[in-house]
Amino acid sequence: MPQDLNNIRHSLAHLLAAAVEELYPGAKRTIGPTIDNGFYYDFEFAPKYTPVLEDLPKIEAKMRELLPTWKSFDKKETSAKDAKKMFEGNEYKIELITDLEAKNEAISLYQSGNFIDLCRGGHVEHPDTINPRSFELSRLAGAYWRGDEKNTMLTRIYGLAFNTPEELKAYKEQMIEAEKRDHRKLGKDLSIFAFDEDVGPGLPLWLPHGTVIIEELEKLAKEKEFEYGYVRVRTPHLAKESMYKKSGHLPYYEDVMYPPMEYEGGKYYLKAMNCPHHHKIFAAEPRSYRDLPLRLAEYGTCYRHEKSGELFGLMRVRSLQMNDAHMYCTEEQFDEEFRQVNNLYLEYFKLFGIEKYTMRFSTHDPKRLGEKFVNEPELWKKTEDMVRRVLVESKVPFVEVANEAAFYGPKIDIQVWSAIGREFTLATNQVDFAVPRRFGLTYTTAEGKEATPLCIHRAPLSTHERMVGFLIEHYGGNFPLWLSPVQVKIVPVGEAHEAYAKKLEQELRKSFVRVEVARAVDTLGKRIRAAETMKIPLILVVGDKEIEANAVNVRTRGKKETETIPFATFLENVEKQIKERAS
Amino acid sequence: MPQDLNNIRHSLAHLLAAAVEELYPGAKRTIGPTIDNGFYYDFEFAPKYTPVLEDLPKIEAKMRELLPTWKSFDKKETSAKDAKKMFEGNEYKIELITDLEAKNEAISLYQSGNFIDLCRGGHVEHPDTINPRSFELSRLAGAYWRGDEKNTMLTRIYGLAFNTPEELKAYKEQMIEAEKRDHRKLGKDLSIFAFDEDVGPGLPLWLPHGTVIIEELEKLAKEKEFEYGYVRVRTPHLAKESMYKKSGHLPYYEDVMYPPMEYEGGKYYLKAMNCPHHHKIFAAEPRSYRDLPLRLAEYGTCYRHEKSGELFGLMRVRSLQMNDAHMYCTEEQFDEEFRQVNNLYLEYFKLFGIEKYTMRFSTHDPKRLGEKFVNEPELWKKTEDMVRRVLVESKVPFVEVANEAAFYGPKIDIQVWSAIGREFTLATNQVDFAVPRRFGLTYTTAEGKEATPLCIHRAPLSTHERMVGFLIEHYGGNFPLWLSPVQVKIVPVGEAHEAYAKKLEQELRKSFVRVEVARAVDTLGKRIRAAETMKIPLILVVGDKEIEANAVNVRTRGKKETETIPFATFLENVEKQIKERAS
Repeated sequence: MPQDLNNIRHSLAHLLAAAVEELYPGAKRTIGPTIDNGFYYDFEFAPKYTPVLEDLPKIEAKMRELLPTWKSFDKKETSAKDAKKMFEGNEYKIELITDLEAKNEAISLYQSGNFIDLCRGGHVEHPDTINPRSFELSRLAGAYWRGDEKNTMLTRIYGLAFNTPEELKAYKEQMIEAEKRDHRKLGKDLSIFAFDEDVGPGLPLWLPHGTVIIEELEKLAKEKEFEYGYVRVRTPHLAKESMYKKSGHLPYYEDVMYPPMEYEGGKYYLKAMNCPHHHKIFAAEPRSYRDLPLRLAEYGTCYRHEKSGELFGLMRVRSLQMNDAHMYCTEEQFDEEFRQVNNLYLEYFKLFGIEKYTMRFSTHDPKRLGEKFVNEPELWKKTEDMVRRVLVESKVPFVEVANEAAFYGPKIDIQVWSAIGREFTLATNQVDFAVPRRFGLTYTTAEGKEATPLCIHRAPLSTHERMVGFLIEHYGGNFPLWLSPVQVKIVPVGEAHEAYAKKLEQELRKSFVRVEVARAVDTLGKRIRAAETMKIPLILVVGDKEIEANAVNVRTRGKKETETIPFATFLENVEKQIKERAS
Repeated sequence: MPQDLNNIRHSLAHLLAAAVEELYPGAKRTIGPTIDNGFYYDFEFAPKYTPVLEDLPKIEAKMRELLPTWKSFDKKETSAKDAKKMFEGNEYKIELITDLEAKNEAISLYQSGNFIDLCRGGHVEHPDTINPRSFELSRLAGAYWRGDEKNTMLTRIYGLAFNTPEELKAYKEQMIEAEKRDHRKLGKDLSIFAFDEDVGPGLPLWLPHGTVIIEELEKLAKEKEFEYGYVRVRTPHLAKESMYKKSGHLPYYEDVMYPPMEYEGGKYYLKAMNCPHHHKIFAAEPRSYRDLPLRLAEYGTCYRHEKSGELFGLMRVRSLQMNDAHMYCTEEQFDEEFRQVNNLYLEYFKLFGIEKYTMRFSTHDPKRLGEKFVNEPELWKKTEDMVRRVLVESKVPFVEVANEAAFYGPKIDIQVWSAIGREFTLATNQVDFAVPRRFGLTYTTAEGKEATPLCIHRAPLSTHERMVGFLIEHYGGNFPLWLSPVQVKIVPVGEAHEAYAKKLEQELRKSFVRVEVARAVDTLGKRIRAAETMKIPLILVVGDKEIEANAVNVRTRGKKETETIPFATFLENVEKQIKERAS
């Protein structure tokens, strides 16, 4: 029977810790969770006995040596006092035990061979059946205890683990390709974004090339949202404490919000989400059923205070420019609104050539109404049914997960796979029954009564940060023409051809084509290669022949052959491709 | 000899305080400055003796009674101790005296008739020669002591004052027109913006109609800036303390910055200006002379902590979305860059029909180099000469004001007059010698050396807040077609014509025309009037005749006659007008 991959990975984390303790005197183990490609374990090593990268094979060998001796994971519950005694001298485990104690949770130990660890469980039944060639240790890294840079820096040992050696191999090949496409590397090479010490971690500066991309995404969103009947709003980046008390974000969401700015006796918070501001715009004017659905869209920038240890390039940041919108509608309109949201996703997937995607549909648990989920049994049933029906009818692949909805309504997470097969969580849709009521939002019904609208949150283009991070990998930096920071590079053969190049540049700029001229300060070959390195989709070489014929010699990215065509034809093609957002 | 208007106004502030003290026992006077249309004086009144609006004529009469008895303003310097004794029981004056004392400033008193006030001076020589019909008291308002809402609320009495009764009359007529065009009133009537208690004072929410306007302004800026060779960037709204120490904003600008957010042992500030972030983008990559001029543009939102007592609609706010750009150039390029900035202003003035404008050119004082002004005598002379030459050559009206430049370079404030003749300060250009050096910005010259670029700051479209405030008054809400939130309203005669109206709506929306249909739920007349009230530029009435001819009956805003034209012709006209941004 195939074992659950997560359980395999979890078991291997134990095995790693066991191997480390045999090899490194004084090593203190802390925690060892699973991750999406394997597992890791964090240790504090004694200065004299600290492994380096070259030591990983040795540890791996020790793991393989121990593995056949591990026949099972035996559970034992214990008291906090006994557990603390057992881990005496390991302040990390003691802190974990103290936390469990404070939360009144059970304290369980698991033993395999001679190795015992504090653990919540989730292992394979027979560890000795794990294929010893389906895992390997992959790297070492520093990591703060509990991800907080005020804490001690620990050493993290990562392992990859899959069901079979073949899966491990395929994953490693994918990773080699992903490394070439790493958004941090390409982001720097292609001048897309930068970080700066004085600005702060997790706060990207969008360089001119990156700004082109995010503004093209905004233009796309604006056009699509206009087509789908949204209106746009713009809201400030902060609000008073009272706003977030009303929304419920304070105190429940406080730890991801920036600390407040205090003045005039009040507290102001940077917004961590746009919803409350949009609710205030709904409330700013009297609304009638005739105004619904009201679809308020804003590329709003939110600030979330992610721990510095968890920041990662553009994928985990503190500033999030979100393709946000809130659709206020009646119950009767919900079905159609949700269908439209869904269609918009599908349009975007098609445009970006995203072929593999799935929607993770999180529903409520009727047993936990009024506790984990707002107590509206009929609305839960009705909206979940509607969402499910739309998903089924539109033939979107989806999985349904019970008991994981948001407090105020069902939730859909959108997972997509990049061109090289890596999975990304791009965006979330949520249905909201509860917050519009907390904000006192109402509209007048056809019968002259007051009613509270439903609200759908959606952000199909994700945040700029995550979307661009994804697109860099997805395209490997070879952005389609409409998204390319520089669309055309004109390379005059020599100085004598610079005037003609300049003339074409002016012509193209009139049509808002992003074009540059590579002046003849270097050899022709070098200049062409420089443009290719920057992955510019169209390179025009112009010399005597081209000037004579009012033509251009076009090198299209990814094509071997060049072609000489009249400039007018080239201009027409380029305009058409950009307008159509051809891939 | 005509007297200085400011001195007249200042003298009248004294006269107001004298009149009030004769009429209201227990009134404590505080301060009485001049303003751009007259003067005011703030008082704390005893609860039993507090004037209301109806009492202003009585106070005015008392002022006119006292005026002929005031032959001069006699100055007397005194000690802080004596001054405090004189104002015993008036904690406001005592606070002012204490402040002067702390700053080691002279304490002077001015007496006219029996009235003595603490004052820095600046009066007319012969107050009795002021024309008693050239001023009047205009209104009463609450005002916090020193503009701080934590302080006592005082009563402010405003007076209008001009050189002649005729000027007073003209001003009042202009004000009646301005009141109709008041951006706060029209901003509400036309659903442009709103404030909300939970968001906070001075932080406007842009409603859908207002967002259309600001996004059209952004589109305009982007197109023009593309044409002028700018590139765009996007930067976060906050930065670390170290950034603003480097820029010099801390501590010198600290009082208009929001208080810091403290975490991870550091302080983060909301940005009050975009320059430091742009400097960081300049610094993010190596720059050569070939990259210059580098023109970085961003519609960046800044936050400034204006005192709540000074907030005013959109004109004085705490969030400022700025049409910002910084141009980094060599000394040789400066002339051409500044000329281009100037041309862009002129293009915008023409587009918006701003006929009266002037540039206030603030220069340095050579005597104060190294103290008030950065010690670069040659750069000062050179850039001031260049700025002056460009202003003269372009025939832009300008006034030159010595000793008012910024610390780091000359400054140009742009004053414009609205269609009804009110003056607005729209924007500021600055030349910066000093800050690029503080940030260590350099480029490699043609000779392979390192040099520091000059930097020009400019924001011709001002901030969205101020620009829209200005445009609302300038157009009286009758925005040109391209800026109109709703461009076309289709009014079907009856229900039978709604399908045709819907069809036209779809056609227009395909061309991104902002169009709405006024469904036949009301009489035709009412629906047309409602569209007119919203100042919609084009109203299309469609009935049987129009359906038959595939035509529309067009009511153009401001025109009496309607005309029936084929829909295709209408669509073509509308597209053309919008594209050309016709006025």
